[in-house]
Amino acid sequence: MNHLPHHDGSELYVSDSAPRIGKKIALRVLVPNTYEFSKAFIRIYEDGEPRSYELKLEKQGTVESWWKVKVEIVNLKTSYRFVFISESKYEWLNARGLSDHDVHTNDDFKIVALPEYPRWIRSSVFYQIFPDRFAKSDIEKVIPDWAHPRDWDDAPRGRDTTTGVEFFGGDLKGVEEHLDHLKSLGINGIYFTPFFPARSNHRYDASSFDHADPLLGGNEALFSLVKKARKSKISVMGDLTSNHCGAGHPWLAKAKKDKNSKERGYFYWDRSVKHGYVGWWGHASLPKLNFNSKALRKEMYEGKNSIVRKWLSPKFGMAGWRIDVGNMTGRLGKDDLHDEVMHGIRKAMDETNPNAWLVAENGDFFASDLDGLGWHGAMNYQGFMRPLWNWINQNSEIGGGFQGLPFAMPRITGSQMVESMKSFTASVPWRSLVSSMVLLDSHDTARMRTVVNGDSNRHLSAMALLLTYPGVPSIYAGDEIGLEGAWGEDGRRPMPWGKKELWDNDFFASVSALVAIRKTRHGLAEGGLRWLAVEDDYILFIRESKREKVLVFISRTGVKASIDLAPFGLAVERTLFGQQAVGKSISISTAEATQGIWIVK
Amino acid sequence: MNHLPHHDGSELYVSDSAPRIGKKIALRVLVPNTYEFSKAFIRIYEDGEPRSYELKLEKQGTVESWWKVKVEIVNLKTSYRFVFISESKYEWLNARGLSDHDVHTNDDFKIVALPEYPRWIRSSVFYQIFPDRFAKSDIEKVIPDWAHPRDWDDAPRGRDTTTGVEFFGGDLKGVEEHLDHLKSLGINGIYFTPFFPARSNHRYDASSFDHADPLLGGNEALFSLVKKARKSKISVMGDLTSNHCGAGHPWLAKAKKDKNSKERGYFYWDRSVKHGYVGWWGHASLPKLNFNSKALRKEMYEGKNSIVRKWLSPKFGMAGWRIDVGNMTGRLGKDDLHDEVMHGIRKAMDETNPNAWLVAENGDFFASDLDGLGWHGAMNYQGFMRPLWNWINQNSEIGGGFQGLPFAMPRITGSQMVESMKSFTASVPWRSLVSSMVLLDSHDTARMRTVVNGDSNRHLSAMALLLTYPGVPSIYAGDEIGLEGAWGEDGRRPMPWGKKELWDNDFFASVSALVAIRKTRHGLAEGGLRWLAVEDDYILFIRESKREKVLVFISRTGVKASIDLAPFGLAVERTLFGQQAVGKSISISTAEATQGIWIVK
Repeated sequence: MNHLPHHDGSELYVSDSAPRIGKKIALRVLVPNTYEFSKAFIRIYEDGEPRSYELKLEKQGTVESWWKVKVEIVNLKTSYRFVFISESKYEWLNARGLSDHDVHTNDDFKIVALPEYPRWIRSSVFYQIFPDRFAKSDIEKVIPDWAHPRDWDDAPRGRDTTTGVEFFGGDLKGVEEHLDHLKSLGINGIYFTPFFPARSNHRYDASSFDHADPLLGGNEALFSLVKKARKSKISVMGDLTSNHCGAGHPWLAKAKKDKNSKERGYFYWDRSVKHGYVGWWGHASLPKLNFNSKALRKEMYEGKNSIVRKWLSPKFGMAGWRIDVGNMTGRLGKDDLHDEVMHGIRKAMDETNPNAWLVAENGDFFASDLDGLGWHGAMNYQGFMRPLWNWINQNSEIGGGFQGLPFAMPRITGSQMVESMKSFTASVPWRSLVSSMVLLDSHDTARMRTVVNGDSNRHLSAMALLLTYPGVPSIYAGDEIGLEGAWGEDGRRPMPWGKKELWDNDFFASVSALVAIRKTRHGLAEGGLRWLAVEDDYILFIRESKREKVLVFISRTGVKASIDLAPFGLAVERTLFGQQAVGKSISISTAEATQGIWIVK
Repeated sequence: MNHLPHHDGSELYVSDSAPRIGKKIALRVLVPNTYEFSKAFIRIYEDGEPRSYELKLEKQGTVESWWKVKVEIVNLKTSYRFVFISESKYEWLNARGLSDHDVHTNDDFKIVALPEYPRWIRSSVFYQIFPDRFAKSDIEKVIPDWAHPRDWDDAPRGRDTTTGVEFFGGDLKGVEEHLDHLKSLGINGIYFTPFFPARSNHRYDASSFDHADPLLGGNEALFSLVKKARKSKISVMGDLTSNHCGAGHPWLAKAKKDKNSKERGYFYWDRSVKHGYVGWWGHASLPKLNFNSKALRKEMYEGKNSIVRKWLSPKFGMAGWRIDVGNMTGRLGKDDLHDEVMHGIRKAMDETNPNAWLVAENGDFFASDLDGLGWHGAMNYQGFMRPLWNWINQNSEIGGGFQGLPFAMPRITGSQMVESMKSFTASVPWRSLVSSMVLLDSHDTARMRTVVNGDSNRHLSAMALLLTYPGVPSIYAGDEIGLEGAWGEDGRRPMPWGKKELWDNDFFASVSALVAIRKTRHGLAEGGLRWLAVEDDYILFIRESKREKVLVFISRTGVKASIDLAPFGLAVERTLFGQQAVGKSISISTAEATQGIWIVK
C-alpha cells in the first residue's frame, strides 16, 4: 500500500488552477500522520529563480493532515515542488512522487496563469467514428474512381494494394440513423476522423477543407447530424490534417500550374522525386504543408474565415479539433515552425471559441506541446494506452503498438505501468493531463478486445480504467460490443448492425454503466489521482474532488486480495460498479479480471 | 558493480557530435556480453516522429561488444534512445540509464546539428578570482565614498551593515603580481567576478560596462594582465550582469532625468517604491534591465560595438562570459524575454568569436537553456556541486547551499548522489554537460574545506572528483590552500599571502598534481562517463576516449574495498594519482577519505 504525501493539480490541492499573474493562491499537501518530518516548504520559481516558503498545518485529521501555503503566481508558467525536512535528510515531492535526492525541475508541478481550458470535456465521453465504416444509409452513391467497393459485412483486407481505398460506403446519414445506439451507450461526444473530401477511405488526404465530402452526404448531412446530436447533448469534433493535404487538393494543382501563385509557397518542392514535391514520409498522395507561407497560415488558421475558425462557428458546429500528426506539423528538416503553427492554431481557436477542445495526435508528446500555450491535450498514447497495453495484453502476436516499433509488446507489472504513466503525466500541467484524450485503441491500432485475446473481463478492466482515469475518454466505435482487430486496418471493421449475434451485449451493458458513471461523478471530472496500491496484477487508486471520493480497483487477472482502507481513513459507502464492498475492508476473490468502483467517505 | 549497456555523447559513441543536417552519423553502444537480449534498435526522432532502426554487432570483445547503427541527422535538435528486446520484455537505454518500462523523452540522448562548442575549454581548468580579495598591489587608492576599508588580514564581517561594502583593496596589478602562484597551481583560465566600476566590493552593481574599474587599475591594468596571462597560456573570462546594472549607471541617471530618453526604456518603472524603478529582488542598488527595449538589446549584445562583443575583441581580450543570474535575465512577471536575450547573446558571441565560452549562472538549469541555442553551459550547481555536497559534507551547520534553501544539507549515499547527477545531466546534450562549469564552491557559497569540517582528505576527494568529472573545473581562489568559509561572504577571505603558516601546502601540491592531470589527459577532456561502482561511501567511474581510459576512485571516508576489474576487461596500467594499484584488482584499505586515478587498458 502507498500512503505518502500527495499533491496534484486538482481542486482539493490548488485553490485556483487558472490564476491571473499576481494572484495569491493556496496550495495544499495531504500528508499521512505516519509520515515523519519536522518542517515542510514549497520551492517555487519566481522570474526563473527558486524561492521557498514554509507550509503550515491547516487541518489535523485522524490519519492524514492538510498542510498549506499561500504563494503569489508571478509568471505565466510556474514550476513548484514541496520538500519535507527531517534530521539529516529531506524528501522532495514533485509530480513524479517523492525523491530522497535532488532531481531536475522537468517533473515539478506546473501551473499556468491562463484562463481555464474547456470544462465541458471533463464530463464528456467521446466516441470515435471512422465515417466509411460506421453506418451506411440507403442513399445511393456514385462509386468514385479510386474506390474498391466492399460489401458491408466483408472484413477489410487491410494489407494489400487496396489498403486505404477499400470502400464500404458509410455516410453521415448512417451515423444520424444510429444516434440511438450512441445515446444508449451514453456517450456525449463524437470524434470524427476526417469527413473532408479525399481520394481514400480514411480521408487524411483532403482535397478540400471547405466542406464535408459529398460522398458522406456533404455539409447538409453534417449539419443535420450536428443538429440532431446537439439535441441529444452530443458534441461533434472534427479531425484536421495540419501536416499535409491530399494530392487532389486544388492548392497543389494551382501550385504546380503557376509557380508565381501564392499556393506555390504552400508546399515543399523537390526535383529529386518524380512528383516534384515533398510528401509526408515520401507519399505522393500527401503533400507536406509548408508553413513558411504566410498565406497558408492565413488560410489554415490566422484569417477570419480560416479553416480552423470556420468550422468552429455556430453554423458549422464543430466542438473542437483533433489535429492529425500534430507532432510533425511544421517540422521538416531544418524548418522547425511547429511551435509557431501550434500556437497559431490555439490562438485562432481561443479567439473564435475558447470553449472548443484542441487535442493533437502526438506519436509521442513533448512537454513543450502541452505547456499551456499549445494543444490543450494530446491523444494520450504514451502516458496511458501503451503502459496499459503493456500491462494488460495477453496476445503476443500484437506488435509494439501504433508507433510501429518493430517488436512485440512486453508484459509489465502494475508498478511498471504506473511508473510509466507518471513519467509522462509528470511532464505537463494537470490541466493538460485532464484535457488529453485517453483511449484504449483507435483506427491506427489493434483493438483492445484482440489485445486481450478475446477476454471480455480483461477488456472490461481496461474500459473501467479508461473511464475512471484523468483525461477525456474516447471509445473507438465497435469497442463497446467487443469488435476485434489485430492491427489498424484490420480493426476498421464496419459496425455489424445486421449481425447482432456478433455483439457482446453484456459488455455493452457494462460499458454503458461505466460511461454513465464517468459522465456524472464529480470525483471523476474534478478529482485528483492518488495511487493507493499498485501490485503486479491489480491497482487501486482514488479520485477525490471537493464533493466526493471515488475509489477504483482494477485487476488484469483473477485475484485474491484483502484491502484494508482504515490506514487511509476511508470506508466504502456505496458500490457504483462491479465488485460489491462495504465498510473499511474490501475483500476480493475472483477467477477473472475484475473491477470495482466505489463511493468512499 | 554496474555493468550495463552504455552510451553517451562522447567520441567513442558518436562519430560526429556536431553534424550538419542531412549527415549520416554512426552511433555506438557498448554492451557487456553478460547482458542478454535478442535484438537492439535505436529510436530516433525525425521531424517530430519516432522511427526505429536496428543495431548491428560491430565488434565482439571478450567481455563487452560494440553495437552500431548509422542514422541520418534530420533536424537541428534530435532526441534518441536505444532499446534492447528479449522475450516478453524490453529495456530502454537513455541518458538516465536503463528502464524496463516506457519513459518520457525528456531524458533521451540529444544531439545538436550546430558547430562544436569551443574545444579549448575541454582541457582548461579555471580559477575564480574575486578582485577585491585576491591580491593588492602597492598602488595607492583613493578610498571611495561607499567603502568601509579593511586590513588585508582581517576576516570579512559578512553579516552586518557593511556587507557588500567592506573594502580590502585587491586590484588587477595584484593579480598580475601573483601569476606565478597560478602558474604553479597549473590553471589555464581565470574567471573574474566583475571588474567593472561599481559601488560595492562585489561589483555586481556595474556603473559602467565600458571599462575596468579604475580602482582595480582600469583597462590598462586589465590589458597588461591579459597579455601576461596569455603568455602563460592563461585565458581570462569576464562576468556580465545581463539581469541588472547598478544604480550608479549613467543609463539610470539619464532615464530618470529624461522620460523621453531611450534609456527610459532600459528599466521597469514602479511608482509604488520610493526609488521609482524595479530592482532585482527589490534592491534599489540593482535596477532590473528591461529587454523590451531594442536599444538596450543593441547596447548589450546586438550592436557592432555592444558590450558582449567589444570585450571579446582581441584588444579587450576576454575569452568568454560568465553571465550573472542567467536564469532571471529577461524574466519579470508577465515578461518572459529570457530565451530571446539568451539566444541574442549567444548569436553575438558566435558572430564575434565562436571560440568564446558562454556559461551562465543558473540557480537551477532548465533543459531549454542548454538545448544548443542558448548558453554553452551553466554553472553546474544542480548536477554537480549540490549532489556532491550532500554526499561529502560533514558539517551540519552549513545551510542548504547557495540556493538559500532554509534547511540543512542532508547526508546522502553514493547512489543518491549519482542518481541526482544523472537527473540533471540527462536533461541536456552531452556538449552542454562538458561545456558547463563544475565547481566545489564559489563566492556565493560556503567553502568546501568548511563543508567537510576541515578534513583535508575529504576536501581532496572533492577536488579529485571536480578535476575528473565532465565539465570545466573552476577552483575558487584560496581553495587550493585550504581556505575556509562558512557561507558566501565569510568565504570571501583575502588570500593570506603574508601568512604562509595558514597554507595547506600538502593540499596545494596535491591539487596542482590533479590540475596537471586534468589539463593533459585526453580521457578527461574527451572521454565519456561510465559509472562502474556506486557504493554508499565510494564511487568508481571511467572516462574513456579514443586514446585512453582513465579510471577514477573517490571515497568520502576510510574504506576497505577490493575491486575486481576483470568483469570489465580492464587492468590498471599506471597510477596517475593517489592510491597505487596494478593489474586487474584494486585493493583499498584506508583510514581516511581517499582517491585513485589510473590509466587502465
